[in-house]
Amino acid sequence: MAADSSQSILVTGAGGFVGQALVRALSTDWRVTATDRAGLGFADLPGVTALPGDLADADLIARATAQPLDAVIHLATIPGGAAEADPALAARVNVAASMALIDAAAAHGNRPRVLFASSIAVFGDPLPPQVDDDTPLKPMLRYGAHKAMIEEWIATMTRRGAIRGLSLRLPGIVARPKGPSGMKSAFLSDLFHDLRAGRPICLPVSPQATCWLLSRRTLAGQLVKALALPEDPADTRLTLPALRVTLRDVVAEIARQTGADAALVSHAPDPALEAAFGNQPPLSTPRADALGLHHDGSLAALVAHALADL
Amino acid sequence: MAADSSQSILVTGAGGFVGQALVRALSTDWRVTATDRAGLGFADLPGVTALPGDLADADLIARATAQPLDAVIHLATIPGGAAEADPALAARVNVAASMALIDAAAAHGNRPRVLFASSIAVFGDPLPPQVDDDTPLKPMLRYGAHKAMIEEWIATMTRRGAIRGLSLRLPGIVARPKGPSGMKSAFLSDLFHDLRAGRPICLPVSPQATCWLLSRRTLAGQLVKALALPEDPADTRLTLPALRVTLRDVVAEIARQTGADAALVSHAPDPALEAAFGNQPPLSTPRADALGLHHDGSLAALVAHALADL
Repeated sequence: MAADSSQSILVTGAGGFVGQALVRALSTDWRVTATDRAGLGFADLPGVTALPGDLADADLIARATAQPLDAVIHLATIPGGAAEADPALAARVNVAASMALIDAAAAHGNRPRVLFASSIAVFGDPLPPQVDDDTPLKPMLRYGAHKAMIEEWIATMTRRGAIRGLSLRLPGIVARPKGPSGMKSAFLSDLFHDLRAGRPICLPVSPQATCWLLSRRTLAGQLVKALALPEDPADTRLTLPALRVTLRDVVAEIARQTGADAALVSHAPDPALEAAFGNQPPLSTPRADALGLHHDGSLAALVAHALADL
Repeated sequence: MAADSSQSILVTGAGGFVGQALVRALSTDWRVTATDRAGLGFADLPGVTALPGDLADADLIARATAQPLDAVIHLATIPGGAAEADPALAARVNVAASMALIDAAAAHGNRPRVLFASSIAVFGDPLPPQVDDDTPLKPMLRYGAHKAMIEEWIATMTRRGAIRGLSLRLPGIVARPKGPSGMKSAFLSDLFHDLRAGRPICLPVSPQATCWLLSRRTLAGQLVKALALPEDPADTRLTLPALRVTLRDVVAEIARQTGADAALVSHAPDPALEAAFGNQPPLSTPRADALGLHHDGSLAALVAHALADL
């Protein structure tokens, strides 16, 4: 169990795919308060306090921030597809509740570290021939605009000295659980599940589609590392390093590691999904690289990490 | 009275200082729906429908957008000082209600023209040695961050083809009425009232303070003109031209035009106000200039316009 002298951290969206791995990674060194509107299964983890509830509920934010926090990692979100389906809910959670959470965490005056899970969706589509730290934000999804707006709020609150904020733009994270996720990119994760299980799968993007991918375990490591990065109030936005791969190569590598038949995979490209998730150009992240952040290193490692997590 | 075939426009914040002049300017050519939470005194204007109510009330937005609108000019806001005093109210009106209004106006599918009154507060302080169309946004006030966030929403909704949006960044507008405005820059307007009335006034900035100013009547003209500007979905943000003047010169010109004694004005600079409102560098607005937008032209014209409006 974490010592009483350990630092306190709030994780929102802690019951989600990324949140679960993150809370486990944090629980050895931090006193973790974990919130989610879905179930929170951390009964086996001493030092973790589960606080179920909806972030759009002001009372939940008040309880989660009643004591000063040393850090907040804000993962909770209504993702891309779900945000298009319910714009009002998405604005309430992704924008209004996010602002309220940041303000409440700042109110104790102790300048907490705040990591915000932004998204490559801030870049929109079509993407320029190369994406780097200077690429302008042109979101097309509501979700991407919401993320860009909260990046702005984090930047302002950091300039004001209210928080020590950092927005980290996440690429596609694999392999998320099967089932409805509200994510338009869910097919990227379904591929791992179906191919390993020997089920045929038809992908809505072409074999030559290029994607930026990161495994959950590598992401959790980067988030923990980011808590201790040196602060730069002049620049509170980082695009996380990601491996750029073609779907063809991902399929071949899953087949190689699992013994599955790559011929189970077929393609029926959807132009909108191909544009949004299958046309990701070379990605350069010099600022994150210089800070020691990294992706999975190789396609073999990425696929191994993703398969080990299924 | 405007013909039934005239186009329909919704003006929010229509009871405010800018809104009142704008509605009058629009009323000859447009069917205007005017909303404000404060009083709306347009009984003398045929073709103007007054719709009192609070924009943070979803029902008001629903009523204001029940019919398709050809255009919206969104002025309603909780300004700088008032937003710092009540952050939750400001987030509700400046961000949540603004997003909901834009979505509701877009929902008819007719791509309405949407002009958003943004602010030079998006640039923050200290300002760089020169401000132009490429100056990055670094708001320091909550109000400035809110404006930058809605600029992002307008840009996204325009890229999506839901609206034909344009965010116009307003400089200091003179001369607003005396009395509590919730604006940190209220002293710029009080100067006109007090000096003309022969009352002593102590300004919280130095004589050499430099400000970007625009008169209300010139602003109203620019907003009407902006309704018909050619669309550029790739760039939905414009900084309005403004006259850059020193307070010393403004005082001298008001004294010249009114016969008042400039010695009534004293200075007790407040460092925060001097930084935020008294240190405005040369302003270059080539994009707005190329579109035919303009400021008052001369200090004499600016002061004459402001005095005529008191």
